[in-house]
Order: sequence, then C-alpha cells, then structure tokens
Amino acid sequence: MVDYVVYGRGCFDQLDEIIAPHRKDQAPMIFLVDHYFADNEAFKSRIPLRSNDQLVFADVSHEPKTDYVDAIAGRLREEFGTISGIIGIGGGSAMDLAKAVAIMMTNPGKAQDYQGWDLVKNKAVYKVGVPTLSGTGAEVSRTTVLTGPTKKLGMNSDFTPFDQIILDPELTRNAPKNQRFYTGMDCFIHCVESLNGTYINEFSRSYGEKAQDLCEIVFLRKDEWNEESDEQLMMASFAGGMSIAYSQVGVAHAVSYGLGYLLGTRHGIGNCIVFNHLQEFYPEGVATFHRMVAKNDIHIPQGITSGLTDEQFETMISVSLGIAPIWENALGKDWKEIMTRERLRKLYELL
Amino acid sequence: MVDYVVYGRGCFDQLDEIIAPHRKDQAPMIFLVDHYFADNEAFKSRIPLRSNDQLVFADVSHEPKTDYVDAIAGRLREEFGTISGIIGIGGGSAMDLAKAVAIMMTNPGKAQDYQGWDLVKNKAVYKVGVPTLSGTGAEVSRTTVLTGPTKKLGMNSDFTPFDQIILDPELTRNAPKNQRFYTGMDCFIHCVESLNGTYINEFSRSYGEKAQDLCEIVFLRKDEWNEESDEQLMMASFAGGMSIAYSQVGVAHAVSYGLGYLLGTRHGIGNCIVFNHLQEFYPEGVATFHRMVAKNDIHIPQGITSGLTDEQFETMISVSLGIAPIWENALGKDWKEIMTRERLRKLYELL
Repeated sequence: MVDYVVYGRGCFDQLDEIIAPHRKDQAPMIFLVDHYFADNEAFKSRIPLRSNDQLVFADVSHEPKTDYVDAIAGRLREEFGTISGIIGIGGGSAMDLAKAVAIMMTNPGKAQDYQGWDLVKNKAVYKVGVPTLSGTGAEVSRTTVLTGPTKKLGMNSDFTPFDQIILDPELTRNAPKNQRFYTGMDCFIHCVESLNGTYINEFSRSYGEKAQDLCEIVFLRKDEWNEESDEQLMMASFAGGMSIAYSQVGVAHAVSYGLGYLLGTRHGIGNCIVFNHLQEFYPEGVATFHRMVAKNDIHIPQGITSGLTDEQFETMISVSLGIAPIWENALGKDWKEIMTRERLRKLYELL
Repeated sequence: MVDYVVYGRGCFDQLDEIIAPHRKDQAPMIFLVDHYFADNEAFKSRIPLRSNDQLVFADVSHEPKTDYVDAIAGRLREEFGTISGIIGIGGGSAMDLAKAVAIMMTNPGKAQDYQGWDLVKNKAVYKVGVPTLSGTGAEVSRTTVLTGPTKKLGMNSDFTPFDQIILDPELTRNAPKNQRFYTGMDCFIHCVESLNGTYINEFSRSYGEKAQDLCEIVFLRKDEWNEESDEQLMMASFAGGMSIAYSQVGVAHAVSYGLGYLLGTRHGIGNCIVFNHLQEFYPEGVATFHRMVAKNDIHIPQGITSGLTDEQFETMISVSLGIAPIWENALGKDWKEIMTRERLRKLYELL
C-alpha cells in the first residue's frame, strides 16, 4: 500500500513540508507535471521548487511509452547521477510516468524489461503522486501502465506504489467536463469489473462497492457539480484503485488495451467506447453507464475500428488476449474457450 | 498506512513465507500471542517458529499497561539484544502490545514517555499484526492504546502502524458471541463518532460509511452468523480503523477511557456501556445500537459506577477530559463549555 496519504482541500500546499525530509544533499527533486499545466502560471507558482530542483513537463498527449520513460530517466541520470525523488502531478499518465521513471532511476536496463509482474528488483527513488484528475486509481495502484515495443502492460511490483500521495480535491476543479467523465468512468468500469470478477473477495468488494456508489452519486444522483462532487470522485478513485489492487479488472480493460496499443486510444475514453457494448457481460453496469452518459450529455465515439485491416484486428486481439489474468478474472479459468479470437474480433468490429 | 495487507480465508498459512525476508542473522522473530490461544494446540502448531524464535503468550486479561510493555521489551533486549521482528496475534490488546513492544525495542526510556502524539523518534522493529477478533481497528491504526501511571493514552506516531497485516477471517470464527459483539460494536461506535464528528472529511466518511454498513449487515440485517459474516466484520474493522485514522473518535470513547483507567473496564464492553446512554449526542446511532443489542440478545451491564467515591468520579472525569482532540472532534472548539465536569459526572453516574 501507499505509505502516506494526505487528503483535504488545499493540502497541495503542504507538499514542500512533506518532501523536505526526503531531500538528500545536492540531489534534486524532480516535479514531473502534466503538460496541461504548462501555461498555468498560478499553479506553477505553487510548486515548491528549491535549489537545483527541476520542473519537467510530461508530454501526455499519448499515454506513456517505455522509450519515453527511458529517455527521461536517462537524461536525469546523466545530468544529476542521482535524484532525491520524483513528484508526479497530473492525470493517470503523468502519475504512471512518474512511477516508472522513479523505478528506472534505480533499476538497470530498459523500462520494457519490467513490463509484467514482480520483475522490478530494486526499490525506486522516493516518489509522490498528486492526482489532478480523479478516476484512474493510478495514485494507489501497484502498476504503471506503459506501451512498449511488444505490449501494453504495466510494471506490477511491490516497488511501484507511491511512497506518498497528496489528495487535494481542489486540484481537480477545473478538469474539462468530458475528460472528467471519461476518467471517472474508468473508476466506475473497473469497479463493475472487479465486483463481477472471479477474483473478488470481501476486501475488494468493500472498496469496489463504495467507489461505485460514489460514482453513481456524482454522475447520476446529483443534479449539479459542486465542491463535494470533486471530493467524492477523488475518494471514488482512491477506493476503486484499492479494489482492483486486490482483485483485477475485466473485459472492458482487456479490450481497451488493444485499442490503446494499436490506435493510441486513451484509457478513459477507450474504456467508455468498449463498455458501451458490453451488455452481455455486465448487464446492470452497462445499463447504469448508459444512464450516466445520457444524464451528463456525453458523446461516446462510435465506429473507431471501421476500415481497419485484418492484420490490425489481429494485432489488437493478440494484445488483448495476452493479458491472461484479466480474462481469467472476467470469465473464469475457461476463459480461452469463452473468448475466442473470433468472438473478440466481432466485439472489436462493433466499436 | 500499513505497508502490506494480505486478505483471505486461510492466508495465515502464508505467514512463514511473508516474514522470511525480514529475518536477520541470529535475531529471532517473536510471536506475541493472545493467551486465549495458550491451550489451542491446533492453532499453536500453525505458528511458523524457526531456530531461536520465541512464542510469548501475552496476558491480556487486562488491557496493556506501559509497565507490561517495558517488561516484555526489557526481557527481549536482555535475552537477544536485538530481534528480527514481532508478530502480534490476537485481539486489540495483543496487537497494541505488539506494536508498543516493537517501538520500545528501538527507542530509549519507558513506554510511558511515548504516550501522546508523535513522540516516538526511531523506527520500530519489523512488526506484523494478525487480528483474531474483528472490530478494534488496531490492525490499521497509528496508535496503541496503553494505560500508564498517569493516563490511558496511545503512542500515536508514524512509526506505530504495522509493516504487514494478515487478515484471515477464518481466525475469527470461534470468537465467543458476546466478545464478538462488544468488539464489533467498537467498530460501529467509532464509525458513528467519526461520521458525526467535526473532523470528518470525505476520506474518513467513505471508510466510516462502509464500515457502518457492514456492521449493520452482520448484526442487524442477517439472521445467522456465517463465514461471510466473519469476512464482512473483518473488513468493517479495517475500514473503520481507516476512518478514525484520518478523523477521530468521540464521546463514547472519551468516557470509556475514564472507565478503563479507573475500573479496568475493557474497551469494547466499556464503549457499549457508555454508548447505551448517549442518545442526546448520537440519536440515530444509539437507536440502531439498541436494535442490534436486542436482535443479538446481548446483555449490556448497568450500574457499574454505583458506589464509587467522589474521588473516583473525579479521577475518571480528569482522565476523560484530558483527551482534548476527542472532545473537540465530538463537540467542536467550544467543547469545554459543553462538557463541563458536572455534566460528565452525571453521565458517569448513569452507567
């Protein structure tokens, strides 16, 4: 689990004090910040830069790739040798990138070598996560989703979670409405997948139910978005992340990974595009999702796979079916007989 | 937060494997086990003793006292110099004792020196918590309630939480029905106190609501106790502990501490005795509590303060009012004007 959690409106301003004891001699703190904030002078002035600290804007137009992780870590090693820590500030991509770079500061080779389960050997440098979008669960997860040369898969390890997270609902206030919905649905969808999966236990269930409730409150039961909604969705994200940390996601995530790998479709919207068509797997969850889409007046893209070649479909299918634990959680031990390449092809064609 | 959490039926049998990487040379692991298990050969045979490990039965007839902590830590230091870690197995007392002894293995002076907030200076030895009763939240809390020469107060610190907890609902299966209820009510009561306190935020609320729901499911909505009930109450305890870790308890705990200090009344039953009479502070919560008491056919003692001297009442009142953060959470900044010594005396006389 994450070691330290600070939660509260405005708590971002405690960051300077929180990281101070972790500063080592001349080694800088690196603030890896979503490029969305590059022109936000008011926000930038609140980042507690000291001496040789660096502010690095992470290009998260695309989700993190392993070679991007290697490039940032390589440059930091070259410039500083060692660093005191990394503070990732932003959406899921910025946080995943921060976790991955922190790991690559202390582990040899390339980021792609660590895509999988428990491959990371050395403790990462000190790392802090500050979410500015709620829903991904990246702030609590023990993975960091990365697209590598052969697969889209995270570095799942005991060394992956942040040492500290700063949960300040105020930071999510100005998120664009569509983006907020897609990212919020990432949480809702992984809760549905976790609660309906075969890996579920009472631990994951408690967290998943709470997170799903909170998503339904903010996206379905409340009639306007207010400060409390930001607070509730931030907790939904945290609880949803805890739920899948101890269980697994399901069909939407598995299928969405193929889209992300081939088309670069971002995780949040990709999950929505897929989940929109998963009535047969999650009838109740998808019905609720449809109501939330309608109530929030959100457009879910359609037809994104039309015109793809057979080879492209095959690539998506292979990437998706490569993530065995997800399929096993979703469909049980016999998942290979249930989700054949043909059936998955038909599903991709629907999107 | 606790670093590592393992949850699941039967997961106690992973203990040997989990602690193995933390064994240091000749330094033993100490298994500090609730004396309730002293004659349980089947359970004792599952404790993974190796080389010079020691099995110590903790006398938890009374709640842990600081001088008992000092005695155990002193003996261990004398015999081994240093130890690899402490595994606390039992109810809240056994777990609190394990945390306190782990702290006193690396901090000078006496346990009573550390009763308060953030007084502990050095990281404790490796410590693992294995609850065999659900409800106290001691498995996740950053305190360890201790009775010292002048106060009943925990060692609240960043070094107090366990490094690892093993949540195995099977271990709680044989808990005596009354004990299970009293300890479960500890959770229910601290949720009511947290949710109705002035310190509440969305983080604590999410956990508190979930824990309260689970308590109501097992003690009110279900008609028989089954395996799932053990699982649900164990999660209630965990979530309830998380809720108060980020908020505070309230009137029942503050008053109950006075009883515990003077009369040695155990925490679980003490909270029930007090909460039974707190309608004016927690009308809904107390009404639900009364229904749970009736449905589970539990006897809540009455008249335990009859015959006490003025001096004894004064002692309880002073101990109780000494815990300012609890009263402030319960009644707000002006708590001293609301809860006068006279009013508290009347409350104690009711019990």
